[in-house]
Amino acid sequence: MATQPQPQQDPTELPPPPKYHSAIGLWRALFFGRPLATHRADEATLPKFLALPILSSNALSSNAYATEAILAILILKGTGALHFALPAALGICALLIIVSLSYIQIIYAYPHGGGAYPVSKDNLSVGASLVAGASLMVDYMLTVAVSVAAGVAAVITVYPSLHSHIVPLCVVSIIVLTLANVRGVRESGTIFAWPTYIFIFAIIATEVAAMIGLWTHASYIQPAATVGEQIHATNMGLQAVGWYLLLQAFSQGCAALTGLEAVSNTVPLFQKPQDKNAATTMVWMGVLAVLMFFGLTYVTDAMGIQPMSEAEPGYRSVVGMVADKAWPPALHWMFGVVQWTTAIVLLLAANTAFAGFPQLASMMARDGYLPRQLANFGDRLAFTNGIIILAVVATFLILVFHGRVDALLPMYAIGVFIGFTLAQSGMVIRWLKSRAKGWHTGIVINGLGAISTGVVSVIIGVSKFDNGDIISPYFHFGGFYPRYGTWIVMVLVPIFVATFYKIHKHYVDLKEDLSLSRGWAQMPSHNTVLLLVPRLHRGMMEALNYARLISQDIRAIHIETNPENTGQLKLDWEPNAPDVPLLIIESPFRSLVGPLLRYIEVVQTERRDDVVTVVVPELVAHRWWHRLLHNQAGPILRFALFNRKDVVIVNVRYFLER
Amino acid sequence: MATQPQPQQDPTELPPPPKYHSAIGLWRALFFGRPLATHRADEATLPKFLALPILSSNALSSNAYATEAILAILILKGTGALHFALPAALGICALLIIVSLSYIQIIYAYPHGGGAYPVSKDNLSVGASLVAGASLMVDYMLTVAVSVAAGVAAVITVYPSLHSHIVPLCVVSIIVLTLANVRGVRESGTIFAWPTYIFIFAIIATEVAAMIGLWTHASYIQPAATVGEQIHATNMGLQAVGWYLLLQAFSQGCAALTGLEAVSNTVPLFQKPQDKNAATTMVWMGVLAVLMFFGLTYVTDAMGIQPMSEAEPGYRSVVGMVADKAWPPALHWMFGVVQWTTAIVLLLAANTAFAGFPQLASMMARDGYLPRQLANFGDRLAFTNGIIILAVVATFLILVFHGRVDALLPMYAIGVFIGFTLAQSGMVIRWLKSRAKGWHTGIVINGLGAISTGVVSVIIGVSKFDNGDIISPYFHFGGFYPRYGTWIVMVLVPIFVATFYKIHKHYVDLKEDLSLSRGWAQMPSHNTVLLLVPRLHRGMMEALNYARLISQDIRAIHIETNPENTGQLKLDWEPNAPDVPLLIIESPFRSLVGPLLRYIEVVQTERRDDVVTVVVPELVAHRWWHRLLHNQAGPILRFALFNRKDVVIVNVRYFLER
Repeated sequence: MATQPQPQQDPTELPPPPKYHSAIGLWRALFFGRPLATHRADEATLPKFLALPILSSNALSSNAYATEAILAILILKGTGALHFALPAALGICALLIIVSLSYIQIIYAYPHGGGAYPVSKDNLSVGASLVAGASLMVDYMLTVAVSVAAGVAAVITVYPSLHSHIVPLCVVSIIVLTLANVRGVRESGTIFAWPTYIFIFAIIATEVAAMIGLWTHASYIQPAATVGEQIHATNMGLQAVGWYLLLQAFSQGCAALTGLEAVSNTVPLFQKPQDKNAATTMVWMGVLAVLMFFGLTYVTDAMGIQPMSEAEPGYRSVVGMVADKAWPPALHWMFGVVQWTTAIVLLLAANTAFAGFPQLASMMARDGYLPRQLANFGDRLAFTNGIIILAVVATFLILVFHGRVDALLPMYAIGVFIGFTLAQSGMVIRWLKSRAKGWHTGIVINGLGAISTGVVSVIIGVSKFDNGDIISPYFHFGGFYPRYGTWIVMVLVPIFVATFYKIHKHYVDLKEDLSLSRGWAQMPSHNTVLLLVPRLHRGMMEALNYARLISQDIRAIHIETNPENTGQLKLDWEPNAPDVPLLIIESPFRSLVGPLLRYIEVVQTERRDDVVTVVVPELVAHRWWHRLLHNQAGPILRFALFNRKDVVIVNVRYFLER
Repeated sequence: MATQPQPQQDPTELPPPPKYHSAIGLWRALFFGRPLATHRADEATLPKFLALPILSSNALSSNAYATEAILAILILKGTGALHFALPAALGICALLIIVSLSYIQIIYAYPHGGGAYPVSKDNLSVGASLVAGASLMVDYMLTVAVSVAAGVAAVITVYPSLHSHIVPLCVVSIIVLTLANVRGVRESGTIFAWPTYIFIFAIIATEVAAMIGLWTHASYIQPAATVGEQIHATNMGLQAVGWYLLLQAFSQGCAALTGLEAVSNTVPLFQKPQDKNAATTMVWMGVLAVLMFFGLTYVTDAMGIQPMSEAEPGYRSVVGMVADKAWPPALHWMFGVVQWTTAIVLLLAANTAFAGFPQLASMMARDGYLPRQLANFGDRLAFTNGIIILAVVATFLILVFHGRVDALLPMYAIGVFIGFTLAQSGMVIRWLKSRAKGWHTGIVINGLGAISTGVVSVIIGVSKFDNGDIISPYFHFGGFYPRYGTWIVMVLVPIFVATFYKIHKHYVDLKEDLSLSRGWAQMPSHNTVLLLVPRLHRGMMEALNYARLISQDIRAIHIETNPENTGQLKLDWEPNAPDVPLLIIESPFRSLVGPLLRYIEVVQTERRDDVVTVVVPELVAHRWWHRLLHNQAGPILRFALFNRKDVVIVNVRYFLER
């Protein structure tokens, strides 16, 4: 044997541009974009003016359904209960402000990205962080489904004839989002920044237009003329409506807060100084959220608009009805602007989850609570694996719940609020431990945040536990009323947490099993090489030569599936390979695998200091369609041997010339 | 190294019963039956009383549509042309007798199975045999589609409300047939023998009943009362109908002859004496075919029955209308018997193709004109591969032609007649060469067969070339009239033949390339082993030990996808494997494959007497779901290396304990 030559040329010096080594590589590149080098990772950072539309779209777009969700609960007691939307909205706005302020604390404390998972891991316990992670994962999945469904509902409002195509429209939207996302965050921002700004402007302008119309008693608004009764004349009292229904309405409206955590989760994606830019974005987001949500609820109430059921053809969303009536005829095209930007921004909201979910999954994977593959940056820094999982689950939700917002909402928001509570609690502990500058203010803000979101979590969990008394009149599967709600999340979260622990245990076991400190098996002193010989030809001679190179104990094995061929093989063998014994093994059932495995067992009992090497010779066809003309014995044998211990599989290939 | 020990125990002595080595094996067994040992192959032979129903069902079942096919052409000129069905039927009966007699000659001449393919291969030329093979293959596919479609049409006649479910019913039938067939020919025969006998009896009894009814002027038959005009009073003359239309009607009716070749193709499946038993079965088949077909056409004509279009809801088949009217009210249940046995026997007809097609494919594969895998007896001696191909193509035809008999018929029969012509011509040449006993009679019979089927082939080919002037009024795709007919077969057959030649060329090239007489490469004197090391652990040490066993030139390769891990690897490596150089290869795009392939290229240019072995270590998880927790670098690398010349892939697996 030769000495050990060191490679003369260092192939690492000049990394050439990536080549597509296969059709699959090219296909991946077309769909997923070209791979991005590690050292160019900082290119994928976001300036504020792009971060705002991308990251705030979830929180702001919930205006498309939050007011409607409140009204849909209240109307169960009759139109007279609708005016309780205002106090419910006020409570939600107060929460919005508290949570926004709390998250600004987190942004500064966790400049590397401080979602509920890392914050509770740092300050509370592993268990708490896993509960936070599981809750947020469930909510990310629901965010995609709810946002896409609401976006389609906004389009339906403009084109009622599309009502029967809700599910396909939702599924196509998810597919488009998935492809956009696996190609990277930056591009999505550039494409989608403008619609969000137009959406913010359009909603606020609609609120202003509605108020002007109402104050001037404009004929096109007619608050009371369109409904059967004078709403404010028959306003019901609190006692008639009931506290519990009001809490249910409030809980349903809390969907308006989902997505507030997006900024703090993605601080590392910001331009430098990352914390300051993120905090500014957070402030803007909070202000806009309050302005848009309260304004919409106020004008809806003032205009006497009643919610409709999405189950019925002819459905129009509450925002759509507001925009339809708020604008004078000359400006009525603003109705279209509102609806279309609403739809687009709801897609951007789904996009928020596409950015957040893979990042959360990657953090948890790096800690060993999710499969390692999720930890890897995929090509283009978009975490491809996580994105695809998210898209699949969201599609499943859309299919099960027929793409209906009112069907999906009962399970929504609870996960986010559990996350809120854990994150703020973690911050309280952090302030107590660190006593850093400004800890007094910080602990008050985060303490208020923790308590209020904690209380609201309980309210949501209880009041939306199942949809029995809320949603059934609005949603059914052909006469059957499934009872679901936050209980589904409460079942899923423990299952997720248990799975995280199981995954973690496997990785811990793995590390222990593989630890070098446990020593390792002796080097085998003998190598028995079994060469599989269907018939003797030039390719087989190369395989035989390789076998000779790696061992002196070679046995040629012929599994006799067709006894007619054995004679010719024996004739060919003797003159060409007299040094290697040829063993004919009968196979009365024409199986290749069974007799081989049995013979391997025989060999393995022969001696203990042995390793068994099976040489599987394979012909590689020159043209793709030639592969169809060869039997697939090679792959079948490699597959069958894969689970055999102490067997090394050697694959010697002979390349056909034509 | 040790000496070469001979195995102490001969594992071939007592072949144990087959075990199912995997879930897939068990699944295969459930669907496809237990494997059958080679020496039990003669179990799959057929006694005459089973051969008749299995093999004659195709020829006999065509009664379900042959008369109707003739009438459907004639009625294009009006009801006055319908009486020309009788002369057309007489011509077809004459052909039936000639072809049956010709095939009896073939049965004796080719006791090992004498279809058109082997007979023309023996006596004419390879080209002729490939044309015969291609024609028959096309026709087998059409046989399945036409028979299944006609079977469903028979059911529709009884239950008109199923008219909108024609396609699903056809597809389900094909699936059932496929599963029945891959489980073996014998069982199918036992299950289906009775319906065929009942069908033969029911059709002949219906003919008798109709004739009795007509002769006694029974009130329930009323030939003229049900139609608007006195048919026989307005009979058109030949001039008005036209020779060409009459030829078209005759051609369409020639579908009655398809399947006559089934017996001669499957002589080896018969009980001994095979030739005599097959010939007797052939005689019975011919007699029954003539009796049933002419009788049906005669009573249809006498009863004044007019064909209906299957495109219209309310469609009833001609046989169904005959049976409906022929029986007096007390015996009217015979209508149901006729329809149901017709449906079942049509499924048996499809079954004939399922027996014949894989056998033809296997013959052609053994001659190297089709992929070798088709030559192998699958488990249970049913030629699984061929059956599945046939089922897929037939399903495709059903979907494209909406499961309609009248849509499929224009392409049908031409293939069989080309086969007939080539087989009989081959026999003529054979008689001329052999001058064996009885060659005078033989050459007359086969010569008459060759000439008549040749002439009819031309008639069918021309008169059904496209459906422009025949079928359009009956068949369209929502306003669009596709023009198809025998031209499709005439295009497909040359394509098939060209493919056969291409496949054959590949096998010839292969044999030449692999021939030992061309010598083979020198044994390489040096083996450079590249060991892929993502990180160092116990499993890796075993892989390293194996590498040490097979070569002294080992290089450990670390593709650096994440530079963070490199430090730890270097620390681990030095104390544990000081004898092996560790090479760190940067991968700025985090690809494993690209840098490895480039390094292999570098190694391959280092020296010429070398083989490069890549050791791909892999962890094998203990539980199936643990596999999801490991990255799939092993399979990815093995896949990527598969197409690299002069690289041997060694797969060393480390089995995790838990």
